[in-house]
Amino acid sequence: MPKIIDHDERRSHIVDVTWDLITQGGIEAATMREIAAAAGFANGALKLYFPSKEDIIQATYERALGMMREYVELDELRGLVALRELCVSSMPIDEDRIAAGRVLLTFWQLSLTNPKLQHKYLEHIRSWRGLLHRYLTEGREDGDIVTETPDEQLVDEVVLINAGANVMSLVAGEFSTIALQRRHLESFFARLTRP
Amino acid sequence: MPKIIDHDERRSHIVDVTWDLITQGGIEAATMREIAAAAGFANGALKLYFPSKEDIIQATYERALGMMREYVELDELRGLVALRELCVSSMPIDEDRIAAGRVLLTFWQLSLTNPKLQHKYLEHIRSWRGLLHRYLTEGREDGDIVTETPDEQLVDEVVLINAGANVMSLVAGEFSTIALQRRHLESFFARLTRP
Repeated sequence: MPKIIDHDERRSHIVDVTWDLITQGGIEAATMREIAAAAGFANGALKLYFPSKEDIIQATYERALGMMREYVELDELRGLVALRELCVSSMPIDEDRIAAGRVLLTFWQLSLTNPKLQHKYLEHIRSWRGLLHRYLTEGREDGDIVTETPDEQLVDEVVLINAGANVMSLVAGEFSTIALQRRHLESFFARLTRP
Repeated sequence: MPKIIDHDERRSHIVDVTWDLITQGGIEAATMREIAAAAGFANGALKLYFPSKEDIIQATYERALGMMREYVELDELRGLVALRELCVSSMPIDEDRIAAGRVLLTFWQLSLTNPKLQHKYLEHIRSWRGLLHRYLTEGREDGDIVTETPDEQLVDEVVLINAGANVMSLVAGEFSTIALQRRHLESFFARLTRP
C-alpha cells in the first residue's frame, strides 16, 4: 500500500515552524532555507507545499488572524455585548496574542511592498470594520449605545488602539501594559453609553 | 592641499539613500550592498562611516524621530496647548510623516531581535511619555485639564493612537484617513476638558 501523505498536515507543520522562526528571530530568521531545515524538508520539497516565501508568510498570517477569531465567541451575541467581546478578545491581552502581534508586524511590513499581501490585509480590515459597524448599529437599535460620536470614528478608534496595542506590547510592553489596554477599552465603552 | 572630506555630510548622504531604499522597497531592499551602490561607495568605504547595517538603521531611525520633533514648536508653550501641538504634530498627517512611519515600522520590527535598538526605542518612548506627562500636569495646574481619567492612562492612549495611526496610514490608509485621525485627537482633547 502506498504511503498516504497528509498534505494539509504538512502545510500546517510548515506554518508551525515559520511561526516559531518569526516569533523567535524575526522575519530575517525565516528564510526558505531555514524553514525547510526546521521542518525537516529538502528545499525543493518545501516548494511543493508553498511555491514561495510569500505563500508561507500569508498562511502564517492567516493563522494569526484565525487565532484572534478563535478567541471571540460571538454566536448568540449582538450589539454592545458583541462589540465588547470582539474588542477585548482581539487585543494582545496574553502571551499568545502578543506573539501573534509579531506575525502581524511582519505582515504589515511585507504588505508595504507586496500588492497581493496588501490586498489580503485590506480584505481583513474591511471585514473587521464591517463587523464593528454592525455591532454599533445593533447597539444603537437596542438603545445601549447613545454617544453622538459617529460610528465611522468609533470604528477607526478601535482599529488604531488595537494596532497600537499590538505594536506597543511588543516594543515597549513595560509601559503599554495589558492592564492599561483594558482600561482604554473600559473608558471607550463608558463613552458609548453616554450622549 | 589635501581634499577635505566632510564626514558628517557623508553619513547624512548614506542615511538619505537608506531612507529612500526603505520607503520605496522595504527593509529587504536596504542591504549593505544596495546602500553602498546607491550612495556611490565601495562596500568597504561604507563601513568607515557605519560599521554595520544596524548602525545605519539606527541613524535612519533617528532621522525619522528628528523629523517628528522638527514639526513641533513647543518653545513658549505649556500645558494643554503644548500637549495638543505635540500630539497633532507627531501624527502621520502628511505624506512626509506617513513615509517616516515606514522607517518606524522597520525599526520596530528590527528592535524585536536587537537589544541595542530595543534600548534606543525604550529611551525614545520614555522621553516622549515624560513630555506628555509634563504637559498633562501643567494643564491640570492651569485648570484646563479636569478629566478624572488618570494621566498614565491618557499618556498611553496617545501613544497607542499614534502607533496605530502610523501603521494604519501605511497599510490601510483608505480607511484610517488623516481626517479621522484629527477627529480622534479632537475628541480626546474634548474629553480632557470635561470632569
